[in-house]
This record gives sequence, structure tokens and C-alpha cells, in this order.
Amino acid sequence: MGSVTSHPVERVLAPLAAALPGLEALYVDFHRHPELAFAETRTAAELARRLEADGFEVHTGVGRTGVVGVLRNGEGPTVLLRADIDALPVEEKTGLEYASTARGVDEAGNDVPVMHACGHDMHATWLSGAASLLAAAREEWSGTLLVVFQPAEEGSGGASEMIADGLFDLAGRPDVVYGQHLVPGPAGWVLTRAGVLMAASDTLRITLHGRGGHGSRPETTVDPAVMAASVVLKLQTVVSREVAATEPAVVTVGSLHVGSVGNVIADHAVLEVNTRAFDDAVLLRLRAAIERIVNAEAAGANAPKPPTIELLNSYPATSNDETASDELTEVFRGHFADGTMLPAPLVTGSEDFGEFGAAAGVPSVFWLVGGLEPLEVITAMTEGRFETDIPSNHSPRFAPILHPTLRVGVETLVVAALSRMSHPGVG
Amino acid sequence: MGSVTSHPVERVLAPLAAALPGLEALYVDFHRHPELAFAETRTAAELARRLEADGFEVHTGVGRTGVVGVLRNGEGPTVLLRADIDALPVEEKTGLEYASTARGVDEAGNDVPVMHACGHDMHATWLSGAASLLAAAREEWSGTLLVVFQPAEEGSGGASEMIADGLFDLAGRPDVVYGQHLVPGPAGWVLTRAGVLMAASDTLRITLHGRGGHGSRPETTVDPAVMAASVVLKLQTVVSREVAATEPAVVTVGSLHVGSVGNVIADHAVLEVNTRAFDDAVLLRLRAAIERIVNAEAAGANAPKPPTIELLNSYPATSNDETASDELTEVFRGHFADGTMLPAPLVTGSEDFGEFGAAAGVPSVFWLVGGLEPLEVITAMTEGRFETDIPSNHSPRFAPILHPTLRVGVETLVVAALSRMSHPGVG
Amino acid sequence: MGSVTSHPVERVLAPLAAALPGLEALYVDFHRHPELAFAETRTAAELARRLEADGFEVHTGVGRTGVVGVLRNGEGPTVLLRADIDALPVEEKTGLEYASTARGVDEAGNDVPVMHACGHDMHATWLSGAASLLAAAREEWSGTLLVVFQPAEEGSGGASEMIADGLFDLAGRPDVVYGQHLVPGPAGWVLTRAGVLMAASDTLRITLHGRGGHGSRPETTVDPAVMAASVVLKLQTVVSREVAATEPAVVTVGSLHVGSVGNVIADHAVLEVNTRAFDDAVLLRLRAAIERIVNAEAAGANAPKPPTIELLNSYPATSNDETASDELTEVFRGHFADGTMLPAPLVTGSEDFGEFGAAAGVPSVFWLVGGLEPLEVITAMTEGRFETDIPSNHSPRFAPILHPTLRVGVETLVVAALSRMSHPGVG
Amino acid sequence: MGSVTSHPVERVLAPLAAALPGLEALYVDFHRHPELAFAETRTAAELARRLEADGFEVHTGVGRTGVVGVLRNGEGPTVLLRADIDALPVEEKTGLEYASTARGVDEAGNDVPVMHACGHDMHATWLSGAASLLAAAREEWSGTLLVVFQPAEEGSGGASEMIADGLFDLAGRPDVVYGQHLVPGPAGWVLTRAGVLMAASDTLRITLHGRGGHGSRPETTVDPAVMAASVVLKLQTVVSREVAATEPAVVTVGSLHVGSVGNVIADHAVLEVNTRAFDDAVLLRLRAAIERIVNAEAAGANAPKPPTIELLNSYPATSNDETASDELTEVFRGHFADGTMLPAPLVTGSEDFGEFGAAAGVPSVFWLVGGLEPLEVITAMTEGRFETDIPSNHSPRFAPILHPTLRVGVETLVVAALSRMSHPGVG
Repeated sequence: MGSVTSHPVERVLAPLAAALPGLEALYVDFHRHPELAFAETRTAAELARRLEADGFEVHTGVGRTGVVGVLRNGEGPTVLLRADIDALPVEEKTGLEYASTARGVDEAGNDVPVMHACGHDMHATWLSGAASLLAAAREEWSGTLLVVFQPAEEGSGGASEMIADGLFDLAGRPDVVYGQHLVPGPAGWVLTRAGVLMAASDTLRITLHGRGGHGSRPETTVDPAVMAASVVLKLQTVVSREVAATEPAVVTVGSLHVGSVGNVIADHAVLEVNTRAFDDAVLLRLRAAIERIVNAEAAGANAPKPPTIELLNSYPATSNDETASDELTEVFRGHFADGTMLPAPLVTGSEDFGEFGAAAGVPSVFWLVGGLEPLEVITAMTEGRFETDIPSNHSPRFAPILHPTLRVGVETLVVAALSRMSHPGVG
Repeated sequence: MGSVTSHPVERVLAPLAAALPGLEALYVDFHRHPELAFAETRTAAELARRLEADGFEVHTGVGRTGVVGVLRNGEGPTVLLRADIDALPVEEKTGLEYASTARGVDEAGNDVPVMHACGHDMHATWLSGAASLLAAAREEWSGTLLVVFQPAEEGSGGASEMIADGLFDLAGRPDVVYGQHLVPGPAGWVLTRAGVLMAASDTLRITLHGRGGHGSRPETTVDPAVMAASVVLKLQTVVSREVAATEPAVVTVGSLHVGSVGNVIADHAVLEVNTRAFDDAVLLRLRAAIERIVNAEAAGANAPKPPTIELLNSYPATSNDETASDELTEVFRGHFADGTMLPAPLVTGSEDFGEFGAAAGVPSVFWLVGGLEPLEVITAMTEGRFETDIPSNHSPRFAPILHPTLRVGVETLVVAALSRMSHPGVG
Repeated sequence: MGSVTSHPVERVLAPLAAALPGLEALYVDFHRHPELAFAETRTAAELARRLEADGFEVHTGVGRTGVVGVLRNGEGPTVLLRADIDALPVEEKTGLEYASTARGVDEAGNDVPVMHACGHDMHATWLSGAASLLAAAREEWSGTLLVVFQPAEEGSGGASEMIADGLFDLAGRPDVVYGQHLVPGPAGWVLTRAGVLMAASDTLRITLHGRGGHGSRPETTVDPAVMAASVVLKLQTVVSREVAATEPAVVTVGSLHVGSVGNVIADHAVLEVNTRAFDDAVLLRLRAAIERIVNAEAAGANAPKPPTIELLNSYPATSNDETASDELTEVFRGHFADGTMLPAPLVTGSEDFGEFGAAAGVPSVFWLVGGLEPLEVITAMTEGRFETDIPSNHSPRFAPILHPTLRVGVETLVVAALSRMSHPGVG
Repeated sequence: MGSVTSHPVERVLAPLAAALPGLEALYVDFHRHPELAFAETRTAAELARRLEADGFEVHTGVGRTGVVGVLRNGEGPTVLLRADIDALPVEEKTGLEYASTARGVDEAGNDVPVMHACGHDMHATWLSGAASLLAAAREEWSGTLLVVFQPAEEGSGGASEMIADGLFDLAGRPDVVYGQHLVPGPAGWVLTRAGVLMAASDTLRITLHGRGGHGSRPETTVDPAVMAASVVLKLQTVVSREVAATEPAVVTVGSLHVGSVGNVIADHAVLEVNTRAFDDAVLLRLRAAIERIVNAEAAGANAPKPPTIELLNSYPATSNDETASDELTEVFRGHFADGTMLPAPLVTGSEDFGEFGAAAGVPSVFWLVGGLEPLEVITAMTEGRFETDIPSNHSPRFAPILHPTLRVGVETLVVAALSRMSHPGVG
């Protein structure tokens, strides 16, 4: 680890205050124009344009719609900074002046509303801002900066696609990988932990095959709506009965679609099921239990054939390298105000961030950045209303405040990158 | 009732054999180009074109996409012949050479496959053929022929719309209303019964309101997928526990939609529920039970607000006038071969056909026409495989044979109309 | 059929009015001392005592606790009159002065409350009264009277046991079999129909095998309470989805038992399921669907072994011989007041009465006798409250009125028997 | 804390080896004669007899069937040692030569099998053995020994009853409270932890009120079996949807009883529900969710009245005093072999042991003692079969090995007591 003094960091961050209005405009633009997984063409074009303007060597189309910026700046380590850029099929209900009214086409070919309900608009803005600052102050550090704007983090495996598409051929393997996520904590807070931080996750698409017919003659059919309903209720028992109370696990049926009209019994139902666990063995047990239950439900319903079960994606647990995480925590603690660098709880959310470090065989560290009005969040926590009253990631009401959120997330990236780079002018 | 001899009927039907190839082509064309409720513009245009060519006074846009042909042919009764023309959001799986690959936009705005899975393509072809024959032989009868091509029979209330749009202002009230439906019986069979023939039916759209959020944090949400699943299972108890075994009733959830992706918990679910009963009081009990159950499920799930329940349509039982039905049965028995005019069982399907007679305050009679390979159907019945092996109305595999189906359904309409008309040249 | 005049009937029934107080006392005694299936020892002893006093040849222990009386009275037909005598494990809540507080031991060895909730106390009293009258007036008829007090009608197969135990060896095969049932209709009404009157019925005992353990560690167990709950809900779909609305069918889980305390997960659950249908093929389909569902539920729950499914009993439909039924209806219509001999609706209840006629290969007729306050019943029917407000058979509140119920049910048996016997003094 | 040398401990424990055959016989006797909560009269009599023989002042009937022994042995602290003595309504399936065939009457008045499936027979034997040793060596320590044999730990609140019945009036408040539990770990292991060790727990009895009737006429009833089934499935969602994955919680329906026979629909169902959480706020949320769900289910089922919900008992979390626990851990580590004194995991089981320390306002420490064949347990753990293959507390197959289990659990109590007592002959 290169020694860090406040000097290069201060000098690199000096232009940030003046850059904030521009970053705010960029964020609002991204927020107004969210794009679904692998359809982030407008977003990618804007990010590529900015990287080029900042002097990066730019690669587009890495993993379909991914964008990579490389800045070779003399001897020294290669630091990979990653942000994800895709949005979700959620209908925005924030009431914000700049709320999204965008629509997109989901995997099933349906036209759906789209919203940056997970904060990837903020992630992209943060990294774009940090890349600019580092590029503008390249006399303060030496090494190679690898800026990765990843598409399709929300369940579509964008990280794997970028790696498979030759990401590490562009500028070699990095020495360390850093990334961050906006969370519904107080703006100004930064949180992380050594070891497992975020859950492992599977997404399964399950097609239940029934036999269609007239709504008035169910006896001639195998009703997929009833089969699907029973599957959803039975899947609740996986967590309630098959996993120990002290082993965190989640099984969610996020999507469930059957038929088109009331008086026709459809011939199939499609469910998307997402699971979470902090232990890979538990994740596999969840998967096995789901398969067992779904097959038995089809048999019990007299289905004409067994269900089709597809593993749409499987994310490992996001686990921070112990040493790298401890070091970075110390650096952040030195940079940020007292009481704002905090230990993170276990987070049931999942990420494919971990695939970069795993594929490169190098340490990675992921952290969380708060983005909500502090007083509101802390009051809700105190009064036990946090879980129900504070809109979280994926909520149609998830609405981060812009300040100091924008500033903090740029600083974390700059500070993390500089913590690893060589500093020519420093002892 | 005008006296009927075989002579005018024979003379009117004489050109039918030569017309069958043309009717077959028309049927195949309709089958290939099915259109959803109130979107039957191509179908309506073709039917209007033919009515005009046959010399009818033609009214289009009656009830949005309905078509009416009036043929004033001297003194005598007004006979209304009705066919419904809309298709269903079903993906055809018949494997027919002329199978539909059409798509349409359903009520929720989704792009969906479309198929004539209920035989309305046959209904339209039959009535177009009968109208031509009657128009070509107007010297054989006197009175007014009112040909009604109704849109949106499948749950969207096309009959009501045509009536509200002034159907009976075009040529006055009819003296009798006739209609027919293709069913999965042996081709060549005609079936009817006096009194209640088909069920009363409600269609309800139920929106369950939850609270959305991240798929990994269900404790911050009210999961509408689980709520919907429980509603579907609980609705099964309405028929199994709340209605006497000797009172026929059906409750079907034909459509169920929640969310878009596995890792987002949506904020609502939408179900379409269709009910059937032969007794209006039972239908109301079903509706009340559904409302009670749905409201309780929302309360049990801690939903942020009660469900929204909309009555999309409510069809009364299709009940044949006793006298008119008995008379027509006698006429059919005289016209068709022995053993092919049969008593119909109670049919749990529903129709808005009955609204024409009810609104006009005149008798109406509805009958069923078989359309499948007789040997296949009768063998399946004998072996107890009928319900499971013979694709019925609304099945993606519903595939009538064209002969003698086309001929029989034209003859029924011609015979029925002539049974009521005055016959100038006859006693 | 022997010719019937009012004279012998009138003469046989003449002492009935004076006998009613004694019959009332007998009924109240039976009602206070109900006994479960095959435990009717006190009841059987009293009935045997009375038969002996009346001069019958008495056989006890026929089918364990059954009692048979034979009265050979010269040449002529043999008429079998049958009453069932067992009570139910129901806790009486009638509030009657003579309500039962009795307890018994059920099949599982549990101590349970017992009540004559199905009216067999009335059946036994009626037949005892009729036997006395016929025995006291044996000069009015000739033939053989076979009085059968059957145990264990409520699902335990008492009729089969009596037949297997040699019932027809005692006095040869009867020429006709008659029986009757108390129902919640107006006292004074008698109802029957030719052909199928009552449903066929299966009773299944299903043991679901789980794996027991501590209530706090469900992950070490296979929870039979959850398995049983899912079975019960899923069985609702048999009637709601697998049987046509126009085919009457019932599937009831009457008994469900799992575990003893909240904090221990038991290792099995026991359900008793009762089904009804008017068609033997439908009954078999119900049975097959239940087996399919139960096996699949066990597989889905990861049960250590498949469920044990036992057929406790299977009763055929109770079907009245067409000729014998029509003849008896005429005779009843001649005897009872106008408007009291009525056509019976299909009854979903089941009976093993039909086994006597089937085993003997002779006609049998079964009829229903109302036993409630007429004004109350008819008002409830008129106001649509009958189903919810009038306690029916098996309800803890089933409470027949004694007059004229006692008289009518004695008269029906006497009239039916005399309608078949030879009458020495007549024509 | 009095200083501890090995000398007094060794001297007190010296007779233990010779006493083991007697303790084994006592254990086998208790195991063969298990008694349900508040019915432990035989067990209590034997324990009282032994305490008296050992020279204790004996109090019986403390908290109905509790037994207390007091040994005043000079100046010094009062140490309370507690064992619970009740058994469970579980049918033993261990196949042991000394397996229980006992039966008892549960709270509902049913005759049920009884088994020491939770190891309280071992607890009682341990404490009886330790009391004898300490009494026989009273020259080695000074102070007051308070031996408490508590009835009704399994959900019936025995600790509260003993306290309310004046336990602390017998020999004053203790200075420390010790207790232990047999667990399915390797025999020879002792485990504990500072702070929360075992879960808080509620037990609720829920009576669902339906309307009874004939099994063939569900439409006249409100079926409590269906209502109960839906409640059981819906309760699974409390853990799967309403509690964060990282907050341990359990909701178990251990007991569920409806009706007696298949063809009668009962008028009520009774469930016993047991919940667990490590946080009192979570326990209250579970209770509120259960009440909300159960009430809504009754409303949805059209129940004639709301469910009756009784809180049978509520145990707080078992929390070890930090200082006392750390001190005792050190003492045990000094006494037992290396690698056998281990940190305990969070245990979802619950205990009312904590009520003694809480009521007295003094520190308490609870620990766990393994009782199974070590090789078998460790192999199962290694192969991931522990949860499924090793019978745990409350399993009908829970069968501790007697050696060294008996010895270890006596030693823990003696060592713990002596760690607190004054030692006259020692520095």
C-alpha cells in the first residue's frame, strides 16, 4: 500500500466543489432516462463521451453495453473502479420533479415502466466525477486507472459478460477492485465490513405447464393459476421450516404471470424467484428445496409435464478481502468526519461486483454510501419505523437527496484509488 | 309462427353447396386474422363489404366495431340473427396450416398472441353465408332480416354496447332473436333446451395493493405475490365449501399478474376472476364471497389499503323462451337427419346473447352446433376421455373440422329465420 | 303387491296415540345415552328387551352390536324394516333439558363427547314403536317381519358387518327392504324419489408421515402440521377444479389431528376425509385425485415416507328401486295428508342402507321424514336462511321436535310394511 | 467469588465414580416413568426422599409439584442449583430397553403418550447426584445450598409458580443461580456464552370458531378445518416475509386439532403456536402478526365470531450475566479436559430458567451439556447430516448415552456451586 498523506487527496479533490452542479445535472439526466439491463445505450454513450473528453482510452460494447476507460499514468498499480448503470422495471412514484416516465421492453418482451430505483444513476455519476478528477490531476499519482461502467447488474449477469468479453485484456489484471452502493442510510455515512458483506443470490425462472381451456370448464384443464398460487405459498415454507432461524435466507417470488383474461384458463404460468443467503451451501439448499417443491406441485396438480426451471443468474456472496478492507477502512476513517465511517451490517442484497475480484484473483472491497436525509432516517430508526417508512432500494419511492450524497460518493472513489496508487511527489 | 314447408327452405338453401368453397376461404381468412374485443376492424370491414354486396343496408361502428345489416323485404316479422366476431388472447397451438400467429394489445396494454379459440370465426362465417342465401332468395320470404355481427362477446360487453348505441333504432325491435355457438360436439349435431341453457357470469378485476421494495428485504414490504397466491387458493373454497354440491358454480382466476423481475417486490397484483352459476342468487353469493375473502386477505397481509374490485362485466343466464325454443326444436327436428337434433346439457359457458332479447322484450333462442370429428368425439366420450382429450372452446388446440360444420351452421340460421318469416307463396 | 285398504292400516295404528308417551320417554332415554359405533350395548339391550316383550324371536350381537327381531306370522312375503342406532362424537349444544353429556372412546382411543346428532335415536324409537304395533295386530297381516337395528352406520360399515355375520340366515332373504331417515324438514313431511336419492361416499384415513423435533428447530424436522394444512387447502381444488360444475361432488376433511403441544413438532398428522358423489365413476375420480394430491404433498414436503391412505368405508349411492318406490309413494300419498308426501331433492348425505337390498338382490326403498317446527323451517326457506340458520344432521344443535315427528315415522314403517304383507281378512 | 483450588472439588467429587451405578438406575427409573407438567408426583416424591436422606430441609408442593432442598452449612453465599423435571406428550420411539410406555392426560383432557424427550430425567438425576455429593462433603464448603427441582418447564410456567409460591421465603434470596440443559452434542462437551443464550418464546392457544354440520353439506357450515389449514400456511409468511433474514425468528404450530370423524364438520379448531426470537421487540411483532392474520382468516372464512387467542406462556430470552458467565467459563475450563469447554451458539430453544435470577435480582448462568455418542455427532456434523440425522430434544428418538453424560452433568453442578461457596479450609 502506498503511503497516503492528505496532500495529494486534497489536491485531487480541490475542483470537486465547482464540479458538483455539473454532476447534479448529469445525475438528473440519468435519473430521467433510465434504461433496462443491456439496453443502457444512451447512458453508455454519455459516459463514454465524458471519459474521452477526460483523456481516457475508451472501450465501448464490452459485455454488450459496458463502457471501460483506461488511463495509463506511469509505473504503479492498476486500480479498478466499478459502477453499475442499469435501471429496473419499476414505475416511479417519488413525485420528484425529475421523476422518470420512461418505458422499456423487459425480457418477456413486455412494455414496462423503467426507473433508477436502485441508485445506479448515482453510481454512474459518482464514478464519472471521480474519473474526471483523477484524470485532471494525473501528476498526483502514478499507475493505471481502470474505470468500469458495468451494464446489467440487476440479475442479468453484466459482470460475467464483461469479463468473458475480454475486460482484463484491455489493461491487464488490476491489483485491486473497488466499488460502492447507494443505500437508504443518512447521507454522509460510509459503511463497510471485512468478510461477507452482501448475500449470495440465485434467480430462477420457473414455467409451470398446465392445460388451457374455457374458464367455465376447469375440469377439462390443469389450471396454472392455482398451481402457481400454491407454489408461491409453499415456497414460504422454505425459509420458515427448512432453514435454521440463525441462518439468514430469503426466497422471493418477484414476478408471477398467468393468462390474459378472466374467462380463459391459460396453459402455463411463469414465476421469477430470487433467493439470498450468506452461505453458498445454504443457497444450494434453497435451490434444491425450490426444485423439489415445484416438481411436487406439478405432480399434485396433474400437470401434463414437469416444470421448466432455468437458473437466470447466480451471484456469489460479496465478500471483502480482510486486509484490503481493514486498510481502506482506516484510510476512510482518516478522511471522513468522525462518526461517519461505520461498520456495515450484513446486507441481504446481492451484487455481481465480487466477480471482478474473483476472476482476476485479486482483493476487492465494496462499501455502502448513505443517501437520505439524515434526520429523517435517524428519527425513523429511533422510532422503529425505518423498515416500513423509509423507501429502500427497489422501492418506487426510493429518492436520494443530492447533497452531500454526490460529493461523498466521488470522494470515496478518489480516496480509495489514491490509497493504492504510487505518489511520485510523496516520500 | 308462419307455417313452414320444405319448399322455401330447400329453395333458399339450394345454392349452399356451391357456396361452401367461398365460405371455407372466408373462415380460413378470419381464423388467420383474429382480432381482440373492440379491435375487430379488419373482420368488420370484410363482413360489411359482403353485406353490402348482398344488398343489405349496412351500419358499421354500432357498438364501436359492430356491424349491422338490414334487409327490409316487405310485410312480416323482423328476425334478428346474431353472430359474435371477437377472438381471444390465446396463443394458437393447433398445428393447423392456417393457424394464427397474430398478436394484439390487451386491456392492460400488453402485446399478446391472439387466436379464434372460441369459434367466433365460424360464427361470423355462418351468418355471412346465411345472410347471402336469404338475400339471394328474397322472393321466398317476407319481413325484415336484421343481421347483427357483435364485437366483444368475450367479457367486454359488446351486446350492451350495440344496444346502447341504438341497435334497435336501425330497423325497430325484432320479433325474435336467434343465435348459435360452435361447441366441441360431433359435427352434424345441433343441441338446445328450453329454459336456462348457459350460465350467468361475472368478471371481476381485483387489484391487491401491497408495498414494493427490494426482493431481499421482504420485511420492508407487503408482498403482493404472496397476497395474490393466497387469494387464488382461498377462492377455491367458495365452490368447495360455500355452494351446495347440487348447485352448479364455477370461480376461475384466469389472469394473474405481479411484478416484472425476481428481485423486486412489486407494489400491486392484478387478478381477473370469472364466475358462473345458473341461478342469479348464486351468482350474487359468489360475488359477495369473493369480496369478503379478498378484503380479509388484504387485512391479513397488512395491506396499506383495501383491494380495488371492479365488475368488468356481468352476463345473465342465457335462457331460451320455452315456447319459441320448443317450436324451433320441432322445426330443426324436421329439417335435420334423425339423431342429430338433441337436447343440450346445462352449459357452464356464458354469453351476452341474452341481452338482445331481454332489451327488446322478445323471445330469444340460442343453440349449439357441433364442430369436431364425430368418431373421435364419440370414442372419447365412450372411453371417458372427452374432458381431458378433446380440446374445447378457449383451448389453444381448439380446431373444428370444416365439413359438415360450415354447412350445418348456415342451415340452422336459414331454417330458423324462415320458420318465422311470412312466406308469400305458401298457404 | 297385496291390495291395501285403509282398514288393516287403521286397525294396526289404532293404539299409536296411546303409545306415544312411552315412545317419547324411549326417545329421550336414547337421546340422553348416545353410544358410538359398535359400542351401542345399552341401546341394543333395551331394543332387544322390547322385541322380546313383543313376542319377536330376538338375535343380538349380529354384526357385533346389532339386534334383529323375527316375527313369523304365516304365509306371505318377508319385509325387512331397518333402523340405525349409533351416535356421533359431537358435543351437544342444543340446550335441551335432555341434552347428552355422554362421552365415549373414538377409534383413535380418545375420550370424546357423544351426541345423537344424526337422529338415530329417533330411527330406533320409530322402528321399536312400529314393531310393537305390528306384533300386537298380527291378525291383520300375514308374512314374516324382519326388524333390523343396525349399529355403526356412521362410517363404520355396520350394514356390511350384519350381512357378513349371517343376517339373511336368520329368516331367509327378504322380499323388500325399507328404511327411513330423519331430516331437517318440516315435521309431517315425508319425501322420497325413484332412482338415486343419496350420494355414494368414501371415508379415507390419511396419515402423513413427517419427522418430529423441537418446535424451535423446524429445519431438523419435516413438519406434519404444515403438510396437513397444505393437503386440506389443496383438497379444495378437487371440487373447484377437477369436477364439472354440473356434477355434484363433496370433499370434506372432517377430522385433522397433529401433535399435542405448541413447542414440539410432531412426527405425523392424521386426517379423515369424506367424499360424496351421485355417480360411482365420479367417486372413484375423487379418490384418485385425493391420492395423487396427498402423495405429491408428501414428496414436496420431503417426507421420510409416503402417506398411509386407508379406505375406512365406501358406501354406494342409495338408489331406490323405481317400481317399488313409485308404488310406495302412491301408498304414502293415500295415507298421509295432502301436501305432505313430496318429491325428495338429491341428498348429498350417504347411507349404507343400500347394502341390504344389494346383498339380498331385492328392491329397497328409503325415504326421509321431516322433524323440525314447520313454520320455522318454511320461514327460513322463504327468507333464504335455511342453510345457515336451521341446524341440520350432524350439527351440535340438531334438535327435532317430538310431535308429530314420532307419530309420522311410526306410521310410515307400519304403512310400508302392510303395503307388502298379505292381508288374510282382505280381498 | 471464593478462590477455587482443585482440592475441595476433588474431595467432593471423589465418591462420584462409585455413585454412578445408582445414578444410572435413578435415570432409567425416571426415563421409564415420565410425568407431564404439574403431574410429576412420583418423580417429586423420589427426589424429596433422596434430599431428606441426604440431610436437606425439604419442601414439597412448592409451585404445585416442585421440590426444594435447603442445606444451611454455615456462613457464606447462597447458591441456587435448578433442574426441571417434567416430561412431554411424545410417544417414545427410541427402541431403548427402558423406553417409556407411559401415558398421561394433557391440558385438553386427552389421554396421550408421555416421554422424557427433552432430557429432564437427566437434569433431575444430575442435580440429585450433585446434591448428595455436596451434602456428604459439607466440611469442604460453607454457605447455603438451595436445590430446586422445578415442575412444568415445558410451556406451563413452573418457574413463575415456584417463585409466586414463596420459593425465596424458604432460604432467602440466592446470590447466584445456576442451571444446565442436556443437548444433542458430543457427551463430554460443556457449552455456554455470555449474554443472550436462548430465545424468548410465546405459546399461544388459538381457537377458531366455525359452524358445524354434516360433512356432505359444507354450504351450511363454516368449516374450521379449512380455516385452520389456511391459518397454518399463512403463519409461514410471518417468518418468510415479515421478519428480516438477519433477525432469527421461529413460528411453529405444534398442535392442531379439528373434529373427530370424516363425515362431520366440527364447529371449532384448536391450534397451539409457539414462537421464538432473541429480541423481545421481535417476539412482540410475531405475536401481533399472528393475531392480525388469525383475525383476518376468520373474517375471510365468514366465521360466526372472532378467534379466541390465549397467551399460554411467554418466556423471556435466557441471558447469562456477563461477569458470572465469564468467571464460570474460566472455572470450567480449568476443571474439564482441553477442548470440551466450548462457546455455545445461539440456541432457538427457550427456558424459564431466567425467571429465577430475574425475580431474585441476582446473576444467573445457564449452560449446555452434550449427551450423544461423540463420534456419531461429529461425523454427522462433518458430513452435513447433523440436522437431519441426529435426534434432538423433543424428538421421539432423542436418546442420550449414559456415560460420560451422567458424570459430566454432576461435575458441572458441583464445580459451579463450589466456585461460589466459601471454603473454610482454604486460604
